[in-house]
Amino acid sequence: MQIINDEYYMGLALDMAERAQGQTDINPVVGCVVVKDGAVVGVGTHLKRGTGHAEVHALNMAGDAAEGSTAYVTLEPCSHFGKTPPCAQRLIKEKVKRVVVACEDPNPQVAGTGFEMLRQAGIEVVTGVLRERALKLNEKFIKYITTGFPYITLKTATTLDGKIATRTGDSKWISNEKAREIVHTLRHRHQGIMVGVDTVIADNPELTTRLSVEGISPTRIVVDSTLRIPLDSKLVQDGLARTIVVTTDEADTAKDAALTASGVTVVRCGTGPRVNLSAAMKKLGELEIGSVLLEGGGRLNGSMLEARLVDRVQLFLAPTIVGGIGTAGSFTFDGVEKMSEAIRLTELEVEMVGTDNISVSGVPVWPSA
Amino acid sequence: MQIINDEYYMGLALDMAERAQGQTDINPVVGCVVVKDGAVVGVGTHLKRGTGHAEVHALNMAGDAAEGSTAYVTLEPCSHFGKTPPCAQRLIKEKVKRVVVACEDPNPQVAGTGFEMLRQAGIEVVTGVLRERALKLNEKFIKYITTGFPYITLKTATTLDGKIATRTGDSKWISNEKAREIVHTLRHRHQGIMVGVDTVIADNPELTTRLSVEGISPTRIVVDSTLRIPLDSKLVQDGLARTIVVTTDEADTAKDAALTASGVTVVRCGTGPRVNLSAAMKKLGELEIGSVLLEGGGRLNGSMLEARLVDRVQLFLAPTIVGGIGTAGSFTFDGVEKMSEAIRLTELEVEMVGTDNISVSGVPVWPSA
Repeated sequence: MQIINDEYYMGLALDMAERAQGQTDINPVVGCVVVKDGAVVGVGTHLKRGTGHAEVHALNMAGDAAEGSTAYVTLEPCSHFGKTPPCAQRLIKEKVKRVVVACEDPNPQVAGTGFEMLRQAGIEVVTGVLRERALKLNEKFIKYITTGFPYITLKTATTLDGKIATRTGDSKWISNEKAREIVHTLRHRHQGIMVGVDTVIADNPELTTRLSVEGISPTRIVVDSTLRIPLDSKLVQDGLARTIVVTTDEADTAKDAALTASGVTVVRCGTGPRVNLSAAMKKLGELEIGSVLLEGGGRLNGSMLEARLVDRVQLFLAPTIVGGIGTAGSFTFDGVEKMSEAIRLTELEVEMVGTDNISVSGVPVWPSA
Repeated sequence: MQIINDEYYMGLALDMAERAQGQTDINPVVGCVVVKDGAVVGVGTHLKRGTGHAEVHALNMAGDAAEGSTAYVTLEPCSHFGKTPPCAQRLIKEKVKRVVVACEDPNPQVAGTGFEMLRQAGIEVVTGVLRERALKLNEKFIKYITTGFPYITLKTATTLDGKIATRTGDSKWISNEKAREIVHTLRHRHQGIMVGVDTVIADNPELTTRLSVEGISPTRIVVDSTLRIPLDSKLVQDGLARTIVVTTDEADTAKDAALTASGVTVVRCGTGPRVNLSAAMKKLGELEIGSVLLEGGGRLNGSMLEARLVDRVQLFLAPTIVGGIGTAGSFTFDGVEKMSEAIRLTELEVEMVGTDNISVSGVPVWPSA
């Protein structure tokens, strides 16, 4: 049973922010609800980078009713002139009486300045309402804005014996339809999707977002040390989304030129023979890709884990056993010596997906980290 | 909230039967509750093979109150003279008015004869109350009594990438303490525990039941094609439980004699080079081992799965990733060609064990089975 209180309105603001995930580019998702005399008088959510913030939309809807109201905002109102004027000033101008916030600005250099501006104008400020939910909702944004590196979600589907294919290479299907719908939801919610070139050569995938409704396709990113990507592959030719190929200084310049001529962005990270993945992630950040869904194969997954570049692991387990001695798994790397040195998932979430897939999700922690 | 009805009393009968698991040898677990004039007047459960059945204990407690009562029994009362007189006759003799049963005798040749005997004596018989729970409780007994083969539970613990050890062979610990307590509970509830000889050579295990309270240790069974088991291993020397070594005709007769002299039962199944596992399971059944907990290693697990001898898979997943290319997994066998030919777990049950282990349990189904 619901109880009307600060959480009640903040919950709605978060619901709105949640639905905008995937459409705000490197910006956070933010929701705002304006309440006056016991009634909602304005709602708003940030829709697209470069356009109005949540508070602006909600205050526009509220009009004169904003005066003396309480504004619920999922993120500390901004205090600086960015692509839009500062929201804190707008709240002051509209004579809002009370501002309730879920979480502070994640950037430690600016955190608190929005609150300060509001308080100096005599507005009552409450913060921390549904804070954990708000932080989780913007975990990708927080990683990016505080480090410059994209937030990496490693997604994979395996059998119970850790295989991604049978000994003959068959991999269709490990996950069920509902798990695949979740994967496409994840694609919508990440700015980039990354695979190794072997996946492109083997499957010639589109790597687009395909849902029962329209979705946003992420930038396709291929890790390809020697530019083996076929010029006639869909990622090069189909124009369904931007494609970036990450390679090394060793890569052939003629192939580079051919790819560039086809509209592909070629980025060189490292002298070779393999791509410097840490430098590559930094470069993607500079290209304003704030989040990446990593969809393997096993060797790229393993290398990204070894390089400690993964922020979340999303695993789908099928209730199957396929055997195969030495058959590829989801995480191919030399591995640790001791069980106590294992990469461990914390904040573990386990749930059934349909009747026969198991979702295991968590935040990886490295032993000596 | 509980409601007093047939299920209410049958639930208690099943609770009693459940607690007797592991102590009735090849017999089923059975509980009985006798109710008269709205009050429980007798309870009983079968404790040990060769001793009184559940109905006998409950009717003894009820004494004269049995006349005109309702008896709740989790399994169809027996109609034949075995090690004890038939329970159906005892119910008739005590003038019980109504008999409520959870499930019929699993042996199709005798199913219904107990009911028939009761009905002919004018007793009202109701069956099928909490039937599914009763069938599950005696799934090991049912497999054994209907096929002569022991019920096999394959238990293993792996990392999320399907490994049972790191590349250096370290395996301590994959599962958490609560998972290990569950494993010892499983040992108590199986008549046999089976491992490959490599496990004995590597770990020199006791394979006993170690709980916070006293438990019953199962018969230790070692699959050992060429009798490589060390004579000074605990399984041969400690006398903590019976030990059976399953081998082939190729095995050395002197080693066989030495093991036999140490009290080990040596059983030859197949001409070699490897043990004929199907013949071995049949032989264990003949030795009145009705259930076996299979604790690997990976090669024995894989061979038992390939031979379709496994009735349940109990997997504990640690939330860890250890890598290691070609490192051993829990199920080592050549494997299937197509994903659609995978061994699939049905009746899937997934639950958290403590905060960081995931229990996955199910009944394996083979593709063309």
